[in-house]
Amino acid sequence: MPIPDNYAPSNRHEIVGLVTETGRNVTKFKVGDRAAVGCLVGSCRSCDSCVRNLENYCPKLVFTYNSLDVDGTVTYGGYSDWIVVNEHFVVKFPENLAMDKGAPLLCAGITVYSPMKNFGLDGPGKHLGVVGLGGLGHVAVKFGKAFGMKVTVISSSPKKKEEAIERLGADAYIVSSDAGQMQAAMGTMDGIINTVSAKHDVVPLIFLLKTQGKIIMLGAPEHPLELPVFPLIGGGKILAGSCIGGMKETQEMIDFAAKHNITADIELIGADYVNEAIERLEKADVRYRFVIDVGNTWTAV
Amino acid sequence: MPIPDNYAPSNRHEIVGLVTETGRNVTKFKVGDRAAVGCLVGSCRSCDSCVRNLENYCPKLVFTYNSLDVDGTVTYGGYSDWIVVNEHFVVKFPENLAMDKGAPLLCAGITVYSPMKNFGLDGPGKHLGVVGLGGLGHVAVKFGKAFGMKVTVISSSPKKKEEAIERLGADAYIVSSDAGQMQAAMGTMDGIINTVSAKHDVVPLIFLLKTQGKIIMLGAPEHPLELPVFPLIGGGKILAGSCIGGMKETQEMIDFAAKHNITADIELIGADYVNEAIERLEKADVRYRFVIDVGNTWTAV
Repeated sequence: MPIPDNYAPSNRHEIVGLVTETGRNVTKFKVGDRAAVGCLVGSCRSCDSCVRNLENYCPKLVFTYNSLDVDGTVTYGGYSDWIVVNEHFVVKFPENLAMDKGAPLLCAGITVYSPMKNFGLDGPGKHLGVVGLGGLGHVAVKFGKAFGMKVTVISSSPKKKEEAIERLGADAYIVSSDAGQMQAAMGTMDGIINTVSAKHDVVPLIFLLKTQGKIIMLGAPEHPLELPVFPLIGGGKILAGSCIGGMKETQEMIDFAAKHNITADIELIGADYVNEAIERLEKADVRYRFVIDVGNTWTAV
Repeated sequence: MPIPDNYAPSNRHEIVGLVTETGRNVTKFKVGDRAAVGCLVGSCRSCDSCVRNLENYCPKLVFTYNSLDVDGTVTYGGYSDWIVVNEHFVVKFPENLAMDKGAPLLCAGITVYSPMKNFGLDGPGKHLGVVGLGGLGHVAVKFGKAFGMKVTVISSSPKKKEEAIERLGADAYIVSSDAGQMQAAMGTMDGIINTVSAKHDVVPLIFLLKTQGKIIMLGAPEHPLELPVFPLIGGGKILAGSCIGGMKETQEMIDFAAKHNITADIELIGADYVNEAIERLEKADVRYRFVIDVGNTWTAV
């Protein structure tokens, strides 16, 4: 599968392109179809997780990038102008979804969509908190609004308020260091998507939840959380982890995104720009993902 | 409501007796009915939690013992031969359930039953872990078996193995300090009811869970948990707190217990024995709850 016109390098595993060749047993795709590969290219297909369409939790999972493949080679993800993948791990990429802006959904999109569906944070009348407004967070806001929820962004600084509300459509914005704002929002949220992996205190976030509310951790801070149990017991609350999603759900996510016109905010670059892109990534100087136009620029590198 | 023949002092809020008088608007009870009062005697009846039958999480909750009641007085629970309670907070106590052995279910029973129902740990084919074999744990084993689950007890010492398997009917027993036993059980449990409030490491317990498994914390250790997030993210796992249950669910629990002949293991004592009982409780020298026969002995004190 060549990648003619884009590729998302941010996590090295968000690849969109056209099918140029199919194996003899392939039924899902034909030459010329739009296709996409996300974070996974292999799993055992028979364990409890695989049987439940949760290949993302298979113990024999093969990641698209920097993983040992079944043939003993290392996977290199989308840093190439073609890739060979078993059709089970390839999703149909909708015709009406932009390939460049849609690509990052293969990681960021499914990572936020899966826990929203799994924890019932997917319908009108619910109130979703989104902690951190980066690659995952800005997509979480878009899915949250598409599900019809009230969405509040919680951030450590006030500087993204305008971005969150006026451009992304969030309903409210809370600066987490502002005790008054946090106090006013206590007990109001059905769930929180927490995208922050820097060290932070989750207890004030737990207090934002309603009874039986859920906080979903998508980023793993380097050090263990200091988690007093009482705030969870006091309101029957849940702290959960979630990691990307299975193939069936990834297809559902990308179809939902196409239907609701959800894309990631990206900066499309050529392959010759990757060194500058990496430098800018280190400074968090991108809103919110670089996507490499591999198909048009790879040969020039 | 007098308490003619028993009372569970272990948490001061497990009271069973007969109705001797009813208010003019009472419809649920008549004089002579068996009735029970658990941990709650009041709540606001109008907040989000109350409307969802989760009075146990109402911010204006009045506990049965040592709580400020709406009239400004302190609640003293079952240390009395009568108690006046709004019928909403009184459950119908089944005719075929022993009053003495059934009483502790008003706290221990609902505390384990509620999260089992809430997290789908209530049917055949599921595997439940129960950490700690005390007042809550022994009842969790009984409910787990009545739901048709495989039940494994996890304990810090081997000394309760015979008790767990031969008397309570658990299917397996794991000593948590035995790395081999823990390793062998990795990834096998749908959920864990964790009744231990002493300081302990929850990470090895999280590893016992299947993908998307749940560990429910019922006891709050004095110090915060040290919780690395990766073990939760890696398997899409849940750590939740749970605190007793609402009135509707308490009624369901006690009816289920009566139907499946579930009672707590108790030692029935007279009111004149409470000082010795307290001393023995401090040494954990009771299997598993003292119940005071208030009705027959209170006046003698």
